Amino acid sequence: MSDYNSSKLYKIRHSTAHVLAQAVLEMFPEGKIAIGPPIKDGFYYDFELPRSLTDEDLEALEIRMKAIIKAGHTFSSKVVDPEEAKTFFKNQPYKIELIEDLLKGGRDENGEKIQESVSLSFYTQDTFTDLCRGPHVESLKEVKPDAVKLLRVAGAYWRGDETRPMLQRIYGTAFESKKELDLYLERLEEAKKRDHRALGKKLDLFSTSEMVGQGLTLWHPKGATSRYLAERFSMEAHRMNGYELVYTPHIGRSELWETSGHLQFYKESMYRPMDIEGDEYYLKPMNCPFHVHIYKSDMRSYRELPKRFAEFGTVYRYERSGVLQGLTRVRGFTQDDAHIFCTKDQVPQEIERAVKFSLYVLESFGLKDFTAYISTRPPKKSIGTEEEWEIAEKTLIETVQKLNIKFEVDEGGGAFYGPKIDLKLRDVLDREWQLSTVQFDFNLPRNFGLEYVDADGQKKIPYMVHRALFGSVERFFAMLLEHYSGSLPFWLAPEQVTLVPISDKHVPYAEELFEKLSDQNIRAHVDSRTERMQAKIRDAEMRRVPYIFVMGDRDIEAGVVSVRSRDFKDLGTMNLDQFFEHVKPELAHGVPRRID
Amino acid sequence: MSDYNSSKLYKIRHSTAHVLAQAVLEMFPEGKIAIGPPIKDGFYYDFELPRSLTDEDLEALEIRMKAIIKAGHTFSSKVVDPEEAKTFFKNQPYKIELIEDLLKGGRDENGEKIQESVSLSFYTQDTFTDLCRGPHVESLKEVKPDAVKLLRVAGAYWRGDETRPMLQRIYGTAFESKKELDLYLERLEEAKKRDHRALGKKLDLFSTSEMVGQGLTLWHPKGATSRYLAERFSMEAHRMNGYELVYTPHIGRSELWETSGHLQFYKESMYRPMDIEGDEYYLKPMNCPFHVHIYKSDMRSYRELPKRFAEFGTVYRYERSGVLQGLTRVRGFTQDDAHIFCTKDQVPQEIERAVKFSLYVLESFGLKDFTAYISTRPPKKSIGTEEEWEIAEKTLIETVQKLNIKFEVDEGGGAFYGPKIDLKLRDVLDREWQLSTVQFDFNLPRNFGLEYVDADGQKKIPYMVHRALFGSVERFFAMLLEHYSGSLPFWLAPEQVTLVPISDKHVPYAEELFEKLSDQNIRAHVDSRTERMQAKIRDAEMRRVPYIFVMGDRDIEAGVVSVRSRDFKDLGTMNLDQFFEHVKPELAHGVPRRID
Repeated sequence: MSDYNSSKLYKIRHSTAHVLAQAVLEMFPEGKIAIGPPIKDGFYYDFELPRSLTDEDLEALEIRMKAIIKAGHTFSSKVVDPEEAKTFFKNQPYKIELIEDLLKGGRDENGEKIQESVSLSFYTQDTFTDLCRGPHVESLKEVKPDAVKLLRVAGAYWRGDETRPMLQRIYGTAFESKKELDLYLERLEEAKKRDHRALGKKLDLFSTSEMVGQGLTLWHPKGATSRYLAERFSMEAHRMNGYELVYTPHIGRSELWETSGHLQFYKESMYRPMDIEGDEYYLKPMNCPFHVHIYKSDMRSYRELPKRFAEFGTVYRYERSGVLQGLTRVRGFTQDDAHIFCTKDQVPQEIERAVKFSLYVLESFGLKDFTAYISTRPPKKSIGTEEEWEIAEKTLIETVQKLNIKFEVDEGGGAFYGPKIDLKLRDVLDREWQLSTVQFDFNLPRNFGLEYVDADGQKKIPYMVHRALFGSVERFFAMLLEHYSGSLPFWLAPEQVTLVPISDKHVPYAEELFEKLSDQNIRAHVDSRTERMQAKIRDAEMRRVPYIFVMGDRDIEAGVVSVRSRDFKDLGTMNLDQFFEHVKPELAHGVPRRID
Repeated sequence: MSDYNSSKLYKIRHSTAHVLAQAVLEMFPEGKIAIGPPIKDGFYYDFELPRSLTDEDLEALEIRMKAIIKAGHTFSSKVVDPEEAKTFFKNQPYKIELIEDLLKGGRDENGEKIQESVSLSFYTQDTFTDLCRGPHVESLKEVKPDAVKLLRVAGAYWRGDETRPMLQRIYGTAFESKKELDLYLERLEEAKKRDHRALGKKLDLFSTSEMVGQGLTLWHPKGATSRYLAERFSMEAHRMNGYELVYTPHIGRSELWETSGHLQFYKESMYRPMDIEGDEYYLKPMNCPFHVHIYKSDMRSYRELPKRFAEFGTVYRYERSGVLQGLTRVRGFTQDDAHIFCTKDQVPQEIERAVKFSLYVLESFGLKDFTAYISTRPPKKSIGTEEEWEIAEKTLIETVQKLNIKFEVDEGGGAFYGPKIDLKLRDVLDREWQLSTVQFDFNLPRNFGLEYVDADGQKKIPYMVHRALFGSVERFFAMLLEHYSGSLPFWLAPEQVTLVPISDKHVPYAEELFEKLSDQNIRAHVDSRTERMQAKIRDAEMRRVPYIFVMGDRDIEAGVVSVRSRDFKDLGTMNLDQFFEHVKPELAHGVPRRID
């Protein structure tokens, strides 16, 4: 993101946001303006307006914006003192609040802390002036009117706080060229079709319920089947590749979270405590303190290391109801979590092993395009010795180099307790999804007093590494659905084969085949409804069933079925043995193995 | 239990408890007596005494008790009015409290509500009189002095309430004959050796931690491996036998628990709520309301029924810290839970299917001796129509008869919302363990408004059945450990084979075999320590490893190993193929299959 923040595109979008505010104030002179930052794929601006905006308003605003842009106004900036700024914005209460907050050493519109000595700046184009740190284009000549687009309006609480007024947020985007905008809009259209929330409903995979609580997922049988298959694959792969499974509870006493530091550093993401006989218990936001306890349940020798404890652990983290979204922003999710405890000498092999294993697992789901993001020691406070940081950072970088993964280094971007690698996947729509993390932790071994007895008889602190491959099972599943547009890999599909008898008299043959498929652990379904064949085929395609077997008199005579795939390919007739042979390579992806 | 309560043995124990109280008051004339009921394997009596009792005291008390018994005193009873009783017990504050509670229509010493019109009774033998409903033996001639034994002293809060005084509880037992007492004491000794808490520690299977919280289990790798294998077996078996998996959250909003009735009827077993944005969320004590929600997520047709939703759902129930115990009384545990939704006509086949499946799963763990306990409609309040109860009760009884399971009927002993079967296992020490439950529920479908559209187009309420096979995974695992004295079936053993090279030079051969065993998914371990061979064998036996391979020069030459089993049998030499052949039948138990 740091590159983006200083890019031309960022300036274009930032400036276009100001143009939007100008157009809105022309339409509603009494309107109140809040903030309007560039965001990942465009920009937004928040307004308090006398009425709700319509699609027609958006069209009119876009036309007016294009006219302002065409006029090619320049952007000028000046430093203002706080009193001057407050006078200027005397009718703009949100701006006044921002100015006062800035004076208090608050945060700016992007949520970043501003420098301590307060100096405010104004940016002006044409008739519009905004409180703003920039940067902007020099003139609107740098913005192409036909590369600008308003997208939608949504409600947004002022400062994301449900107790503050609900504003109208206008989302828009701008690109350097119309071609890029068109490409983006096409992708947006495609992304809408692939939205995992819509697919989850359409394919009957999961739901949430107001009565159960927002952000808490109910996995329906079909979604649960795919999730189960993914978890089973992963658990078996873990067991084959040197991990030991553990199970730990979902709640723990306050003393545990005090010792781990969560109550100090993570409390805002934790739920309120429950009182049990005078002790406070918290739902776990992470699994680590429990794994640490299992490590600590015995005195460890260097001979036992590395220890690799793995668990599919369900954690609960508080998120405001306003930001909850499908399976990607939830209040409870399951991590395919593991913690590695090892000696200094074992660090390189353990990191390589963890990253290789991660790639192996993800590739089994047909995922290929990864970038590694490495975050190193933060300049300010950090825990752990110079040597520990050096070894850890060096190992992370050497590992991605050795494994030939493209990577970026975020210097100083690490957490205070250790450096990490994030593995992100680029999906078919060119969007990045955060999946695996391999994170050193120099904090917990100290807080909990972890030790092992080394070959020299000395007690030493083990290196500790957190890692998750899917990351969150929920988010991983959302990604799979969107990446594959619902057409999950064959081995993961909840329904793998639909049997479509052409008429009632072909049902017994379909049922006979169903039994044979079940014997081979193929998840099949006989569509014996009295619908027309074409309707049944279409329904199966809608359900994203990988293979559809159609069967009539001639097929039965020949002991075959007519096979169609969900991408509308006619695969001709096959008998079952031929079909099993046909899907063998696809099934092989779902069979875990030892990778070294 | 109702048979026991009216048995001769019950009277013997009850009377012996009174004899104990007499002996204690002779030793401590100022002692205060509380309550002293018969219990499952004996009796206890609670006292407040000027000092803690020693083992010598117990011996002296037992000698005195035998003397009292030998004197053959008769038991006489009389009805007393409350004032007379209070006067009699004026120096016994616990008795006074009991009398006052009885007057308030409270509960008697066995926790049972007494009749509404208050009539108190005294029972007297020799010099001792107690407030008591009986029954007792007619005379102590019916008690054999050498069949009486005092066992131990433990602290117990008056009325189980931590805010009330801590009393001294003396446990004892009595049987009809010395032979039966000896048999019981032998079993007690054996049970101590098999105590799953001791085995859990010795075999490094699980632990709890004060810092994490009492009653919350940390499953160490070895325990977790066996648990995982049991769960994997069960989940696969469920999938093959018509169940659909679901996953649901561990917390839910108060509205959910109000609708389900849990906040009305089950609140005392639930943890305190957590506030999230003004809503109260509770940790789930049961999975049912979530499964009900998944049922309700769509309009159901009779064609879709039966629906069988299965989940390994971890639930949390409040238990007082005083009663927590190993894996059998915990605060969090996992149920192998499923809910079946079906039409009236499907009830018989579904119940038979569920019970057969339960037997199949349990028998795969080598368990065989079951008794079914059927609880029917309670005489007072109940929910559901006459027809529903009739069909349900009839089906339960016919099913156990058809499947030839020995059973007992507890008439009127069912919950208000439906009848049930409990399947209990008799273990090698002749103790009963509650495992499976198949429970009708006429309440939740009504509370949540569950429906399906029947063939006639009418909306109808489905029958709903809860069932768990292991019951609690934790308790099931405790039972396995105690039943098998830690020697889990081969397919479940965390370490299946220990390879013991006689000297260092045999280690490479051991490692070669290790790889071959791993390729066949056999969990093996090479003991390459520089210990003596005998010590390694002994350690493996202590770890209850099913097979030990010893290998020296001659074995290597012949391409074999010398195999020993954990029950100290020498199985001679085998090559790996012969070994795989040897364990094939044992492994077969762990391979799930369709049972019809």
